Amino acid sequence: MEKGKVLLALTGFHPQRWRELLSAEREVVLEPDGPSDPSITYAVVWKQRPNLLSKLPNLRAIFSIGAGVDHIFADPGLPDVPIVKVVADNLTQYMTEYIVWRVLDHHRQGMLYRTQQRKKIWHEPPQRSAGDISVGIMGLGHLGRAAASVLLSLGFAVNGWSRTEHPMTGVSTYAGEAELIPFLNATDILVVLLPLTPQTQGIINYGVLKELRKRNGLGGAVLINAGRGRLQKDADILRALEDGTLKEASLDVFEVEPLPKTSPLWSHPKVFVTPHAAATSDPAHLVPIMLQKMAAFERGEELENVVDRDAGY
Amino acid sequence: MEKGKVLLALTGFHPQRWRELLSAEREVVLEPDGPSDPSITYAVVWKQRPNLLSKLPNLRAIFSIGAGVDHIFADPGLPDVPIVKVVADNLTQYMTEYIVWRVLDHHRQGMLYRTQQRKKIWHEPPQRSAGDISVGIMGLGHLGRAAASVLLSLGFAVNGWSRTEHPMTGVSTYAGEAELIPFLNATDILVVLLPLTPQTQGIINYGVLKELRKRNGLGGAVLINAGRGRLQKDADILRALEDGTLKEASLDVFEVEPLPKTSPLWSHPKVFVTPHAAATSDPAHLVPIMLQKMAAFERGEELENVVDRDAGY
Repeated sequence: MEKGKVLLALTGFHPQRWRELLSAEREVVLEPDGPSDPSITYAVVWKQRPNLLSKLPNLRAIFSIGAGVDHIFADPGLPDVPIVKVVADNLTQYMTEYIVWRVLDHHRQGMLYRTQQRKKIWHEPPQRSAGDISVGIMGLGHLGRAAASVLLSLGFAVNGWSRTEHPMTGVSTYAGEAELIPFLNATDILVVLLPLTPQTQGIINYGVLKELRKRNGLGGAVLINAGRGRLQKDADILRALEDGTLKEASLDVFEVEPLPKTSPLWSHPKVFVTPHAAATSDPAHLVPIMLQKMAAFERGEELENVVDRDAGY
Repeated sequence: MEKGKVLLALTGFHPQRWRELLSAEREVVLEPDGPSDPSITYAVVWKQRPNLLSKLPNLRAIFSIGAGVDHIFADPGLPDVPIVKVVADNLTQYMTEYIVWRVLDHHRQGMLYRTQQRKKIWHEPPQRSAGDISVGIMGLGHLGRAAASVLLSLGFAVNGWSRTEHPMTGVSTYAGEAELIPFLNATDILVVLLPLTPQTQGIINYGVLKELRKRNGLGGAVLINAGRGRLQKDADILRALEDGTLKEASLDVFEVEPLPKTSPLWSHPKVFVTPHAAATSDPAHLVPIMLQKMAAFERGEELENVVDRDAGY
């Protein structure tokens, strides 16, 4: 099989660096040559323009440059070819850093200490042990498991919830809708790493937050969302913060991105905002992996990390 | 050997909880009965009053309730009995949390993101990989090694410097005065966990900070001191922050504690201040360990983790 040509279709990312690196081994174009270009074999995409891929007769596979693939399914003209998720050590490491960083900042009372510093207050509040705190991770795929492993090494108790059972040593795992409430009831710090699918959209709502464990001395539960913005209801998070259901939140993702300047989340004293930056897709790390996958595919090997279209991730 | 009586001599800690827990197994007093009380076998101390211990004829051992013992040596009338350092999983875990938390907050640009949030700026700055960053730990004892291990699992490069060679798998180790400059030259984020001794007092000065690695795109090195305040020169840290030698600092300890309200460190935008709270001595965890050590000693076993008086720690 010949070296297939690549269509690079990115929205919200500058294509230049991706193009340069892909061009080292393959011909790369930013637009098909007409509406049904037969020369294109692969599409490397982020939020591709709707119907852009629908009429490419020789398209063999679609590669996502991010960990999520919901942006691909948003296309009504999505052709029926394998969609390959990116799985890269680099991306996993960034996500683990973000999760561990945010868990520790809430656990070690960073917001309180920063307030005290502004007021020049030298005061040591009581500090719980990590072993006393349960971090509950929703989504126990590659990213969730990597974060769980470092959290365990720091001494936290770790719970995990996923659509289907994902056992992991040292982690109390829960699966499916029936075990969601018991999982939440046993969780102090909720970490959301779910894929966005029709089933998970809006799952982080007031009712779910209300089920998080509330214990004396902790002053409410904590939410960390590093998955997708549309998993959550921004307004429900604000309500939960207002009435003390939530103590604090770290949000990397939002229902609408960029987060509108009018959102009260920006200036809420109990919310830490990052601009969808938890785990950045770095072309220097991801392009070599994609090129290897294309070469292996052309040697007749099977594609790995292919999206399950029924599950939506 | 009979169950020895305990003198509890704490400055800056409320003795009540310690007393309650020690009393479960032993007689405890807060003051000797006269200047040369023969009934006292052990002293459990934090900054004991000078000469308090000098004339206790049957004192067999001194227990420190914190990881450092410099506060004990500050006593000119310190008797020549073994001084036992506290080594507790709990204390190690707290210190590891603090170090990992602060390294991640600097590495993941927490100060920048908090500033952006105040201004409602949605912008993702370039983010280095952990593998691109060398964390250099000064002091590779029990606490330093535990922190190094989690930092390695997060993908950071880790250097270690200590008075004498302490090899550790995965860590580039440096020892003694001769290797201090090479260690600093290879370090982006400096973590200080040294004991305070006449040799280490004031070691974190401008000349030392100047030797830290400076690389394009990192904008200066980072200092994290969770050891002792008198290891550092507060004024030199401010100077290094002003001229860009240091990008940011996290300080848990200070030359004078509590940090005076007049100190410019409180309001410096590049400094994160905590009130000597990195690793709190929790009596619920430490007292059972001390009671076990006393009981083992009375069964004829040797005391462990005894301070080397020549080294001063």
